Amino acid sequence: MTDADLPFDTKMLDKLAEVAVQVGLGLEPGQNLVLTAPVEALPLVRRIAAAAYRAGAANVTPILSDEAVTLARFEHGTDVAFDSAPDWLYKGMGEAFANNAARLAISADNPLLLKGQDPDKTSRASKANSTAYKPALEKIANFDINWNIVSYPGRAWAKQVFPDLPEDEAVAKLAEAIFAASRVDRADPVAEWQAHNARLRARTEWLNAEGFSALHFTGGGTDLTVGLAEGHEWKGGASEAKNGITCNPNIPTEEVFTTPHKDRVDGVARASKPLVYQGTPIENIEVRFENGRIVEASASEGEATWKKLIDTDEGAARLGEVALVPHSSPISQSGLLFFNTLYDENAACHIAQGQCYSDCFVDEIASDPDKVKAGGGNASLIHVDWMIGGPETDIDGIKPDGTRVPVFRKGEWAQEV
Amino acid sequence: MTDADLPFDTKMLDKLAEVAVQVGLGLEPGQNLVLTAPVEALPLVRRIAAAAYRAGAANVTPILSDEAVTLARFEHGTDVAFDSAPDWLYKGMGEAFANNAARLAISADNPLLLKGQDPDKTSRASKANSTAYKPALEKIANFDINWNIVSYPGRAWAKQVFPDLPEDEAVAKLAEAIFAASRVDRADPVAEWQAHNARLRARTEWLNAEGFSALHFTGGGTDLTVGLAEGHEWKGGASEAKNGITCNPNIPTEEVFTTPHKDRVDGVARASKPLVYQGTPIENIEVRFENGRIVEASASEGEATWKKLIDTDEGAARLGEVALVPHSSPISQSGLLFFNTLYDENAACHIAQGQCYSDCFVDEIASDPDKVKAGGGNASLIHVDWMIGGPETDIDGIKPDGTRVPVFRKGEWAQEV
Ligand SMILES: [Zn+2]
Ligand SMILES: [Zn+2]
Ligand SMILES: [Zn+2]
Ligand SMILES: [Zn+2]
Repeated sequence: MTDADLPFDTKMLDKLAEVAVQVGLGLEPGQNLVLTAPVEALPLVRRIAAAAYRAGAANVTPILSDEAVTLARFEHGTDVAFDSAPDWLYKGMGEAFANNAARLAISADNPLLLKGQDPDKTSRASKANSTAYKPALEKIANFDINWNIVSYPGRAWAKQVFPDLPEDEAVAKLAEAIFAASRVDRADPVAEWQAHNARLRARTEWLNAEGFSALHFTGGGTDLTVGLAEGHEWKGGASEAKNGITCNPNIPTEEVFTTPHKDRVDGVARASKPLVYQGTPIENIEVRFENGRIVEASASEGEATWKKLIDTDEGAARLGEVALVPHSSPISQSGLLFFNTLYDENAACHIAQGQCYSDCFVDEIASDPDKVKAGGGNASLIHVDWMIGGPETDIDGIKPDGTRVPVFRKGEWAQEV
Repeated sequence: MTDADLPFDTKMLDKLAEVAVQVGLGLEPGQNLVLTAPVEALPLVRRIAAAAYRAGAANVTPILSDEAVTLARFEHGTDVAFDSAPDWLYKGMGEAFANNAARLAISADNPLLLKGQDPDKTSRASKANSTAYKPALEKIANFDINWNIVSYPGRAWAKQVFPDLPEDEAVAKLAEAIFAASRVDRADPVAEWQAHNARLRARTEWLNAEGFSALHFTGGGTDLTVGLAEGHEWKGGASEAKNGITCNPNIPTEEVFTTPHKDRVDGVARASKPLVYQGTPIENIEVRFENGRIVEASASEGEATWKKLIDTDEGAARLGEVALVPHSSPISQSGLLFFNTLYDENAACHIAQGQCYSDCFVDEIASDPDKVKAGGGNASLIHVDWMIGGPETDIDGIKPDGTRVPVFRKGEWAQEV
């Protein structure tokens, strides 16, 4: 585990660490940092710790996961192992966030780690974990504190994205894609992020000014009307957390997104890309919504996992997010399927089953859970994005009086802003 | 980080994992396990996770530390970094233990990691950490739950123990010493541990039956009378935690130990081996006690660190443990200095500055913190063992009526039991 073994330019990791801490988190002096990562990402973990301490962090606490330990549960665990989770750890994290700790996650996992495991066990384990994680996730979903996710080119992940290349070449290619999408291959990554954030802000300002009550998606087998929550607000790029710190939660990010109305989604949605959910690939999802709820669901592969997923709780069959990404976005243009939500959701328009972001409401509503609920904000243990956009996607914005405004045509923004 | 890179027989790690879980923890089905380890010890972490799941663990949560991240704080941290600690994590661990989670620690650290760092910073960081760790440490020190420490042959540690050998040979030698001391190089390690525990129990039963009120140590520059706490009890080897589970907290262990009276220690103690405290070597410690408290202290190297240590709080200058280990014990006979308390304290009679083990009292007192205090049990943020025994050590047991009974002569037990 030395830098010398890495088949890419490790100076890029130095830049990625700076971007994660400065742009991603906007870390303020005196903040604690909770840093979750797979152990394989240690070369980036170490650089982020150094960058955070330079930025004045009080304490940087890495919580490292290991795929072999994760698998040990499925290979050796007795029945009791699949309904339990480290409640104490997640409750502690929730407390850290309540005390204004920032949160950084490094995503590098093998997307197919749990492929072939008993779906009943993976589903029980996942539900136990989601339940235990709730006290921490709520504070992230409510945007109480500044948080960020960045990626690291893990070996198993790289082999999945580039199955035909030798391992080192696959890692090098994935590293190149991550560094490009994260804008650290430019001379001044921080300035690049400022310009990109300004472009995303112009889009959200236009959408907020138009005041659509619904979006109508067509193309690629989808014909779906997504009602928007009352008092919804479009967000994207840099955003101010409730602790007053402006951060970029996702690096990369290409999307603008808001909260659908949990009872006003109707029609058919067909996935434009596969979804990998906790290690299981789910292909060719197709669902029909009635009054906000999925009433028919199918998939050509992983259908059992998909049905279990939308059956997790009442809110899992309803939407918590709708997001717009042009087909010309750099991640989409790479033509790669990353098997990683952070990347694939930034390649295409998507919707998410489950929990909404209360932050995607005007302030007066966002601060009051009762008003979020009354406005149509969905609640669930899960939040799972899946892609419905592609080169054929047309979207109309529908105003409260029924007027239609072109938003997307053939996968691209229909208006200049 | 693959097993193939390890310069020792990894089958020994399988056996060590089984001994840690079965003998060390006595893990019961349904227990959660909190597993702390340096990331370098992953090959053992993974095997312990598997062994724990086989034994019916509900959830195994590794909390992995990394030396480069630890150093990043000292190299890049601003002033605020040295007075903070992950309170949320330790509080969470305390809650896990309150809910009957077991605790396993793998010790493999570089003993000199922090050598050369500013002693003011290391001392502040250590104090902040001890303060934050208190909610978790109390439950371990009070023996509320079953816990265990085992060792793993880390590279930097091995180089410190065998400075003249090439690195791989040093690791192989340290591995051999660890496997021998942990009794996993025998055909049936679990049976070996049962026999060893029976021998230690015979010693504690004799000491408890004698009912000494003090021990008088002489030899090697030491002339020290250690009064024993009222209601003290001698412990050693396997012991029953308050949750009813019998475990072996230390693997290896060769000591029998009890609680001194915090106000009744008088005379001079001279260290028989160096102490490495949080990365700083402290050589040739000599102290004088009056009424239980150190009133004069010196060391030929690391004196500032030693004085800061015994100045941590009021209890740090007083004793919390006295322990007896014959000079013929296998670890002593190896002739090695391990720079690791788990090993070196099992090579020689020792005393410990700071917190006492309330478990080293008869049950009626052990369960009541007020009675522990009234009996003379010491309290402190720290518990630091240092060695005073050697081949010249004589010990007399002093009974309440002043009668003297030989306990040790020339470093060995003076009585057959
Ligand atoms: Zn999204
Ligand atoms: Zn989403
Ligand atoms: Zn001891
Ligand atoms: Zn001790």
